[in-house]
Amino acid sequence: MPMPSFQPPLRTLMGPGPSDVHPRVLAAMARPTIGHLDPAFVDLMDDIKVLLRRAFKTDNEVTFPVSGPGSVGMEACFVNLVEPGDTVIVCRNGVFGGRMKENVERCGATAVMVDDPWTRAVDPQRVEDAFKANPGAKALAFVMAETSTGALSDARTLTEIAHRHGALAIVDAVTALGGVELDVDGWDIDAIYSGTQKCLSCPPGLSPVSFGARAIEALRARRTPVQSWFLDLNLVLGYWSGSARRSYHHTAPINALYGLHEALLMLHEEGLEAAWARHALHHRALRAGLEAMGLRLAGVDGERLPQLNVVTLPDGVDDAAVRQTLLTDYGLEIGAGLGEFAGKAWRIGLMGQSASRRHVLTCLAALGGALARHHRAVDLGATLAAAEAVYAR
Amino acid sequence: MPMPSFQPPLRTLMGPGPSDVHPRVLAAMARPTIGHLDPAFVDLMDDIKVLLRRAFKTDNEVTFPVSGPGSVGMEACFVNLVEPGDTVIVCRNGVFGGRMKENVERCGATAVMVDDPWTRAVDPQRVEDAFKANPGAKALAFVMAETSTGALSDARTLTEIAHRHGALAIVDAVTALGGVELDVDGWDIDAIYSGTQKCLSCPPGLSPVSFGARAIEALRARRTPVQSWFLDLNLVLGYWSGSARRSYHHTAPINALYGLHEALLMLHEEGLEAAWARHALHHRALRAGLEAMGLRLAGVDGERLPQLNVVTLPDGVDDAAVRQTLLTDYGLEIGAGLGEFAGKAWRIGLMGQSASRRHVLTCLAALGGALARHHRAVDLGATLAAAEAVYAR
Repeated sequence: MPMPSFQPPLRTLMGPGPSDVHPRVLAAMARPTIGHLDPAFVDLMDDIKVLLRRAFKTDNEVTFPVSGPGSVGMEACFVNLVEPGDTVIVCRNGVFGGRMKENVERCGATAVMVDDPWTRAVDPQRVEDAFKANPGAKALAFVMAETSTGALSDARTLTEIAHRHGALAIVDAVTALGGVELDVDGWDIDAIYSGTQKCLSCPPGLSPVSFGARAIEALRARRTPVQSWFLDLNLVLGYWSGSARRSYHHTAPINALYGLHEALLMLHEEGLEAAWARHALHHRALRAGLEAMGLRLAGVDGERLPQLNVVTLPDGVDDAAVRQTLLTDYGLEIGAGLGEFAGKAWRIGLMGQSASRRHVLTCLAALGGALARHHRAVDLGATLAAAEAVYAR
Repeated sequence: MPMPSFQPPLRTLMGPGPSDVHPRVLAAMARPTIGHLDPAFVDLMDDIKVLLRRAFKTDNEVTFPVSGPGSVGMEACFVNLVEPGDTVIVCRNGVFGGRMKENVERCGATAVMVDDPWTRAVDPQRVEDAFKANPGAKALAFVMAETSTGALSDARTLTEIAHRHGALAIVDAVTALGGVELDVDGWDIDAIYSGTQKCLSCPPGLSPVSFGARAIEALRARRTPVQSWFLDLNLVLGYWSGSARRSYHHTAPINALYGLHEALLMLHEEGLEAAWARHALHHRALRAGLEAMGLRLAGVDGERLPQLNVVTLPDGVDDAAVRQTLLTDYGLEIGAGLGEFAGKAWRIGLMGQSASRRHVLTCLAALGGALARHHRAVDLGATLAAAEAVYAR
């Protein structure tokens, strides 16, 4: 059986990640591999740390990309900061809060759950109540941008509550970073992790993390060893630290880091605030178009992510058939509902390079076409005009 | 501070990994990213599993690349198969046996160490003795190809000993896979992990693993949950399994998998046995040249890896100065000594694409030049002639 090289179909990526990767980033990844202890690579690692600090808005020395996808960044935060016997308050307003619970429990700690309805932001009052009912909780963990529901939670307020109760704030910013306002130092977040395949528009495989002084203090004060050798910050830092004597820990994913460097350069050429504004603009245009074709976004005003739009499925529409038509006839990927929302919602991403006027108009036109085939006719003129009206403002 | 794109210097990679990556693999990684649940990507995952099974010589259903570097593959084996209270016999004849010990202990288990001198293969008699002294040991763990010392251990015999004592055999094949004979099913290995940046000549970042029936049985019989969410095979398999309902676990490093697929294609176009023979041939030529210039390989005959050559430093030579000259004047990377061998040995890799006549001759010529500058004159004519004589046979 002779097997051909893999030639991926051309897609427009508007799901919950990966987002479209810019040719600059793809080209960067194809540059020749060099050694992971090469002086030129060590310089690159330093540049990446500088660029990541700017993206997170932090001066935290301990800011670097973990050599694994976002789930590994999540695990890096929990295994380093949580020990057997600890109590962690975990907010769950979607799938990823549930994953945090799994992480906490596998560290031998107790997860006290604060549940909020899907599509809603985390309710600060419930978090306050949970701390009162659980004095001595070591940390608060929450998802700032829930990729499964499109909800944006107030990371600043939640972090304040954690600190008022002497707890660390551990923040999931996988979908947040680069797409919506985030200020690690200004909001005093203790530990945060993200992913590369969302608003940074890299391929998946790396997880930028940042740890502040309180988190490092908690790490130093551990009574037990970190249960993961690979993720033990005490060891990883010898590799990613700025010291001249960089100690070997593992072999970094070199070409993936070429790509991350290029993507971070692009973010900073644009400007962080400009990138946030761009995501907000295209979200407004997409929303206007969707509403003009009679579709509705789940969630409530003020709690919606611009970069991840959860659309309630119209009654009687065949979820799988519409997405199949979008993929095969239009080359467009949107996301299915996840967890409670399976079969009940679509997730339309406007992340990184996929947050553009071209993407918004393509998506509206394609969705209109697919709905016309599988559900009912759509007034495409009115739909596109509604989106264009946002851009004309 | 405007920052330019990263342009890596051109290197010839002959260290302990990464090895030189073929332009076909670099080009594959630069192809457009698609979704990780895209039907085309799901097909690619299936093809990668087929190709990996061929490279490992196994029919194990559970054969796939873990989304992280080799150290993560190691951790995947230990956290799934080892529980608190277990005893594991760990062979240590270099740095990576020590890392296995760390892994075992972080699983709450006891590591019984079998130490052999650096550069020597694991001694089967000592392993036999260790099992006799520790009846009921759950597993034997050893490094088949020690990247820190260049030693090749007899994986077939060691696996037989483990089975005779009712234990699982966990094998580190990070540097072995693709470079030297390896037959997972023929030797009945239970769990094995590798890396991509050695004899597969991919960039680092993925760790191919394979688990046999006994390992899966041990996983099912666990009394405690796997301590890592990300590495819990019960969950990962839902993602990598061949079932039609592929469940979301994490986002795979898509473009890295494009690269791995292409590298595995190249291996199978060449033929596994042909690749092993190629590594052996260039090892003989390199060794002849090194000896002609008065250098000696560490270790003993019959226990040396062809793909990783550990050269004892001549008395009075300045290790760092020679490697610096090789890097800056010749663009050649060789590896420094690791652990006990720091400052006492060089590690010259002939792995994957770096196992070629061009690499051997480049390395000999460059090393001769660097030694002439920092140590003493070398008869380059005799050196190259000795290598060429091997090719002429």
